[in-house]
Amino acid sequence: MFKINDNYLKLPGSYLFSTIAKKVAAYKEANPDKEVISLGIGDVTQPLAPAVIEALHKAVDEMSVAETFHGYAPDLGYEFLRKAIIDNDYKARGVDIALDEIFISDGAKSDSGNIVEIFSTDNTIAVTDPVYPVYIDSNAMAGKTGDYLQDKQAWSDVIYMPCTAENDFTPDFPERTPDIIYICCPNNPTGTTLTKDALSKWVRYALDNKAVIIYDAAYEAYISEEDVPHSIYECDGAKECAIEMRSFSKNAGFTGTRLGFTVIPKALKSGDVMLNSLWARRHGTKFNGAPYIIQRAGEAVYSDEGKAQTKAQIAYYMNNAKIIREGLNAQGYKTYGGVNAPYIWLKTPDGVTSWDFFDILLEKANIVGTPGSGFGPSGEGYFRLTAFGSKENTEKAIERIKNL
Amino acid sequence: MFKINDNYLKLPGSYLFSTIAKKVAAYKEANPDKEVISLGIGDVTQPLAPAVIEALHKAVDEMSVAETFHGYAPDLGYEFLRKAIIDNDYKARGVDIALDEIFISDGAKSDSGNIVEIFSTDNTIAVTDPVYPVYIDSNAMAGKTGDYLQDKQAWSDVIYMPCTAENDFTPDFPERTPDIIYICCPNNPTGTTLTKDALSKWVRYALDNKAVIIYDAAYEAYISEEDVPHSIYECDGAKECAIEMRSFSKNAGFTGTRLGFTVIPKALKSGDVMLNSLWARRHGTKFNGAPYIIQRAGEAVYSDEGKAQTKAQIAYYMNNAKIIREGLNAQGYKTYGGVNAPYIWLKTPDGVTSWDFFDILLEKANIVGTPGSGFGPSGEGYFRLTAFGSKENTEKAIERIKNL
Repeated sequence: MFKINDNYLKLPGSYLFSTIAKKVAAYKEANPDKEVISLGIGDVTQPLAPAVIEALHKAVDEMSVAETFHGYAPDLGYEFLRKAIIDNDYKARGVDIALDEIFISDGAKSDSGNIVEIFSTDNTIAVTDPVYPVYIDSNAMAGKTGDYLQDKQAWSDVIYMPCTAENDFTPDFPERTPDIIYICCPNNPTGTTLTKDALSKWVRYALDNKAVIIYDAAYEAYISEEDVPHSIYECDGAKECAIEMRSFSKNAGFTGTRLGFTVIPKALKSGDVMLNSLWARRHGTKFNGAPYIIQRAGEAVYSDEGKAQTKAQIAYYMNNAKIIREGLNAQGYKTYGGVNAPYIWLKTPDGVTSWDFFDILLEKANIVGTPGSGFGPSGEGYFRLTAFGSKENTEKAIERIKNL
Repeated sequence: MFKINDNYLKLPGSYLFSTIAKKVAAYKEANPDKEVISLGIGDVTQPLAPAVIEALHKAVDEMSVAETFHGYAPDLGYEFLRKAIIDNDYKARGVDIALDEIFISDGAKSDSGNIVEIFSTDNTIAVTDPVYPVYIDSNAMAGKTGDYLQDKQAWSDVIYMPCTAENDFTPDFPERTPDIIYICCPNNPTGTTLTKDALSKWVRYALDNKAVIIYDAAYEAYISEEDVPHSIYECDGAKECAIEMRSFSKNAGFTGTRLGFTVIPKALKSGDVMLNSLWARRHGTKFNGAPYIIQRAGEAVYSDEGKAQTKAQIAYYMNNAKIIREGLNAQGYKTYGGVNAPYIWLKTPDGVTSWDFFDILLEKANIVGTPGSGFGPSGEGYFRLTAFGSKENTEKAIERIKNL
C-alpha cells in the first residue's frame, strides 16, 4: 500500500498568496462594482523591455528553422547567458565566479524550494522572521522543521531570528546554532537591507559554525544605497559558506517569463564533497533547462539597451515606493524599507492585527496588501505594500488610505 | 555543522546522457575530421511548427504592452491551455478530466523527478527494466532505493520488472508487492507498448494492492496501432490509482521550449487525502509556472494548423524509425519498437555488451546511440537508436552500419 509524505499534512493552511488570492476573489465576487487595487503579491506590471522583446522575437525565429533550432539546453544553461551573468553581476563588482558555478533555472522560487534536497534531513534551519514562506514550507515538506505549533504560529524545530523595528531589522545571532541560514537581502517582506559590515559578520558566523547561508538576492537590482552588498560574495570567505540565488523576475519583469540562477562556488564543501556537484546532479536529473528563447531574453537584459531599459523600469517602481513611503509617513504611519527594495513594511495603526488591517484595507479602501503575520510570528502588527503597481494606482491607493 | 543528503553519494556515475555526452565530446576532440551522427539522446531536430512560431510571436508582442502583459501565471497553469488539453487529449478519447486535475509544468522530466516528494520514504518502487533513469535516480536521491549493488548494477530496494524479448516486453507482476509502479508507455527506451488489455491488468493489480501507478505517456503521439491506449485513464479504475504525465517535447518538438503536464485525478486518495491536493501544494510552493508565452505555444499545438503540422513532424520521425528498423532487419539485426514510438531497440550482435557496441558504433561508424545497459540490468545486450535525426543522417547511419 502506498504511503504519502505526511509532512505535507502538517503544513498550516495553504500558501500565503493563494489564501490572499481566494479572499480577494471572494470579495470581488460579492462586490463586482468595486475597483480593487492590488499592492499585495510582488508581481510586476510593466511590460518587458524592448531589448528583451527583440531578443525573444529573434530567438523564436531561430526555432522556426532546422539549422538554428535548439533542442535540449546544456545542463547548467547556455554559456552565453552564464557568461553575461559573470561579467555583469560578478566581475563588474570584483567577484570572481567560474562558468560552472552558475546554474540557470526557471526562477529563484524553484531553486530556493528545491535546494533543500541536497541537504540531510537532520539540519536545523534558521530564518529571519518575518520570512519569504517558501524557505520554511519547502523544509517543512521535507520533514526538517518539526511540528507546527498553532499557538505560536511557528515550527518547533526552526530557529526564528526576529527582525523588527526594535533591532533595526538586523538579525542577532541566535542562541541555538543553526546548520543552514536563510538570508534574503534586500529583504522580502520588510524591504530592509543589511550593510556590508553586518552581512560580513554573518559570513564569519557561518564559517565559524560550519553553517551554510542560502542567500536570496532576488531584489539586488533595487539597491540604491552605497553600503549595501549586491552579492554575498563581496564579503570575504562567503565562497566557502554561501549559496546565492538570483532572479530575473524583479529586475527585468520576468515573473511570467521565468528565469533565474543559483551560484554554488566549488569552494563550498562538506568534507570532500562539493555542494556544486550535488546540485549539478540534481539539476541534471530533475530539471531540463530553461527554454532557449527565455535564456536569450535573459542575455538581452545585459545588453546596453537592456540595462538602460530595465534600469528605467526599476526607477519607475522605486518612484512608486517613494509615493507610498512618503504618502504613508505624511499620514502618520510608521514605515520601513522602500529605499533599497520595492517593498514598504508598515506598522499597523493602533495595534490592529495584520489580518484585521488586511480586511480593513480590502473592505474600506479596496486595496490588497499582505498581512505581516503571514510571513512569520514577528510580522504580526506589520503589513507589506509593494511598489509594483502602476503609478496611477499607487497614487490612488495612497489617496484612499488617506480617506480611511 | 551542516550535513549533506548523502543519498546522492550512493548514485553510481553521472546521469546516463551526461556520460555519453562526455564520451562523444572526447571522441570528437580526438577526431575532429570525423562527422559524427547522433541517434543517441532523444532530442528532436525539426523546427517548431509554424502555428507554434506564430503563437510565440503573438504572445511576445502581448508581453511588450502593459495592457496585455502577463506576470505570474495561475498555480495550475492557464485555463486556456488546460482546457485545450482536456478537450483534445481526454474528452476526444472519452476520458473525463476536470480543469483542476491538470497541472502545467516545464516538462515531464521535472514532474517525473519531483513526484517522489509527495510520497513517504518507505514506499517500495517497481520499475520496468530497462527504464528511463530519472525514475530511479530521483528515488535514490530521496533515499527510497536502498543501496546500489555494483555487481548487479541494481538497487537493493527497487523491484525490477524485466522487459525483454523473452516476455515480449510486457512486465510480469513481481513477486514482491510494490507501492509505487512506474510505467512508461509507449516505452522509453524499448519503443514497445502495452495493449489496452495488458495495461488494464496493471490497473487492476494496482487497485488490488493499493499501489499507485506513475504513468509516463510522453510518447503517446507516436502510437500508430489501434489497440494501444493513449491515456491510462482509458482503462477502468485508473483514476483511483494512476498519475499520468505528458510532454510537449516529443509530440511538438518542445525539448528546448519546455512544457509538460501532470494529471492527478481527485479520485486518487490515500485515506481521506487527495494526492491532487498534495501536488497542488508542492506546485504552488516550489514552482512558479511555465512562461506565459510557452503556454500560448502549447495551446497552438492544439489548433487545427498545429495539429496538422505536428502530425507531419511525427510522420517524418516515424519514417526515420521505419528506415532504421527495416535497414537493420535487412542486415540481420533483431529489432523491437519503432512502430508506436520513435525508439528502435536492437539486440547487439554476437553477444557484445551494450557499452562495447556503443564504442564500436562510435569509433567504426561514427554513430552515437545509447547502450541498453545504461537503462538497467535487463537492458544489457540491447542498444537504443532514436528516430529524431534528419532523414539524410538516418539513411547515412544505416548505410554506415551496413559497412561495419
